[in-house]
Amino acid sequence: MGMLPKSYEGQDCSLARALEVVGERWTLLVLRDAFYGVRRFTDFQVHLGVPRAVLTERLRTLVVYGLLTRQPDREQPARHQYTLTDKGWDLWPALHALRSWGEQHVPASNGPRRLFVHAICGADIDATSSCARCHRQVSPEEVLAAPGPGLNPEVSQDPVSAALQEPHRLGQPLAVAPTRPPTERTALADAVMGHAG
Amino acid sequence: MGMLPKSYEGQDCSLARALEVVGERWTLLVLRDAFYGVRRFTDFQVHLGVPRAVLTERLRTLVVYGLLTRQPDREQPARHQYTLTDKGWDLWPALHALRSWGEQHVPASNGPRRLFVHAICGADIDATSSCARCHRQVSPEEVLAAPGPGLNPEVSQDPVSAALQEPHRLGQPLAVAPTRPPTERTALADAVMGHAG
Repeated sequence: MGMLPKSYEGQDCSLARALEVVGERWTLLVLRDAFYGVRRFTDFQVHLGVPRAVLTERLRTLVVYGLLTRQPDREQPARHQYTLTDKGWDLWPALHALRSWGEQHVPASNGPRRLFVHAICGADIDATSSCARCHRQVSPEEVLAAPGPGLNPEVSQDPVSAALQEPHRLGQPLAVAPTRPPTERTALADAVMGHAG
Repeated sequence: MGMLPKSYEGQDCSLARALEVVGERWTLLVLRDAFYGVRRFTDFQVHLGVPRAVLTERLRTLVVYGLLTRQPDREQPARHQYTLTDKGWDLWPALHALRSWGEQHVPASNGPRRLFVHAICGADIDATSSCARCHRQVSPEEVLAAPGPGLNPEVSQDPVSAALQEPHRLGQPLAVAPTRPPTERTALADAVMGHAG
């Protein structure tokens, strides 16, 4: 496993080991976006609004630990696409449970921005990934992320938020409108800093 | 909700809001110990090996957000006990799912240190809190934390680890052997720094 970036000394439990991989700030939000079907550096960046250096580091860590793969982008060969591996998909129950807890206990004033429903029957999925109608465990491939009553399209106007205004199957690539190509200066900075997508 | 200690600007989703409450380093491990039945500052401290100032801050945050209550300790009235609220209990599916992912994907070389089984039937509980035998959702009150094959009693010799060498129902107070009372200097430091248990 090599050196862990932030270890929990003396805590040799599976929770501490999981947190060593995904417990860094922003990491779970990067994975959330990967479940939404975000695949390109630029799209993660505009949606998360996170500094590029932080995003670069988080994506790198997720690739090193095998939760994402990084492959050349067919449409833009100089860039890459990040896709969830099986190890990444397996994090869904944790991510969904944490999200559900937030929805229940730290609710938004105007209701959920996004609903997570069973694509087959349309019913809600509870914190333990159980469908309220089918009464069985729902795998993330069967989950539909749909706009909720709290979604205000005027607040988030980036292309990823725009694409997510339609119901979307988790993991399916998201059709994101291209952002304007980077200026020469940005492209140069990317090359120098080594995060050219 | 007031000021959040570390907000995710522009990320008004329920996952980001959950992470604002429990995403700080060590917070989920403090909650894990609370599920194990740890209730006293000293016991959290010896088991986690975290700096006292960090533990003080994490416990304070969890009390402020209502995941733990802080009440006078009957046996040591100058000190306090921290107990999970319903809001804290509701975090179990997330904590267990994350722990399960760690167990599966970042395994310990000599097997799990601790097993989480359904107290009623003894079967394993999967990442979505479903019992392998009963095929139903298991609430944390029904979970037994038991020593696993990877547990090496010689490695962790603090009183909390010692108490956890016996199977233990989640949430039940853990019978921890008293650690030696603090020296005068420690007691003074506690009083000055405001974390006297």
